[in-house]
Amino acid sequence: MSDLPQPASILSMTQCWDLLSSVALGRLVTSVDGHPAIFPVNFAVQHRTVLFRTAEGTKLVSTAINHEVLFEADQHDQVDGWSVIVKGTARVLRSEEELDEAEQAQLLSWTAPTKQHFVRILPLNVTGRRFQFSATLDDALAAG
Amino acid sequence: MSDLPQPASILSMTQCWDLLSSVALGRLVTSVDGHPAIFPVNFAVQHRTVLFRTAEGTKLVSTAINHEVLFEADQHDQVDGWSVIVKGTARVLRSEEELDEAEQAQLLSWTAPTKQHFVRILPLNVTGRRFQFSATLDDALAAG
Repeated sequence: MSDLPQPASILSMTQCWDLLSSVALGRLVTSVDGHPAIFPVNFAVQHRTVLFRTAEGTKLVSTAINHEVLFEADQHDQVDGWSVIVKGTARVLRSEEELDEAEQAQLLSWTAPTKQHFVRILPLNVTGRRFQFSATLDDALAAG
Repeated sequence: MSDLPQPASILSMTQCWDLLSSVALGRLVTSVDGHPAIFPVNFAVQHRTVLFRTAEGTKLVSTAINHEVLFEADQHDQVDGWSVIVKGTARVLRSEEELDEAEQAQLLSWTAPTKQHFVRILPLNVTGRRFQFSATLDDALAAG
């Protein structure tokens, strides 16, 4: 195991959106009476916003819509990883123009396509970091 | 695109821990003055607890330790996915016996190994769901 520090590196805004665009699964974090709740969602990036679909009347909708939310996506292998966090405001899309635009995104859904809302997170702040592991799995096993 | 609903199925406790054990990256969600914060962490499952390491003096430590936290891990492919959420209390391990036990876990770290704490989340509640996509990516592209 290396003793050298391997600090995280900060990602640029362009890198953040490019990496977000490379994955399909993220997590929405909302706040319910001061207690956090987390919801995995399938999403797409469109014009530097985060777009997903969800059923009506869910806890996700009631706690997220028109509120400040966090959205996180990440990926890693055995060598390094990255994580991007979007802080933003979640809005339900209602106008025909908004819905037409959202339909252009290649968006999968985990629930039935009926009675669904498109939700768009308008970003207020986007941060991303790239990590390196301080030990490989082989090292960990050898040190076991 | 199918019109049939494809509801999520609820995972058993054993399935939840087996699936958690199958991945190495999860997300810790804490609350800071009522606002949620999310931190990706590398973790291991040990005796139905979640174990990870983190540096001293971080926002993660100050907001998580001895508080109720959420921990989420998930995985998906183009057909289905799962997500497990652990609600629990985060504790820093301090005794030699606790540290010896934690060292047995095959735990990677994203930061330098010096000045690190082992943190264990003692679960209060574990929930998991398996999802199916309502449309395949091919369908989405064809509909696009």
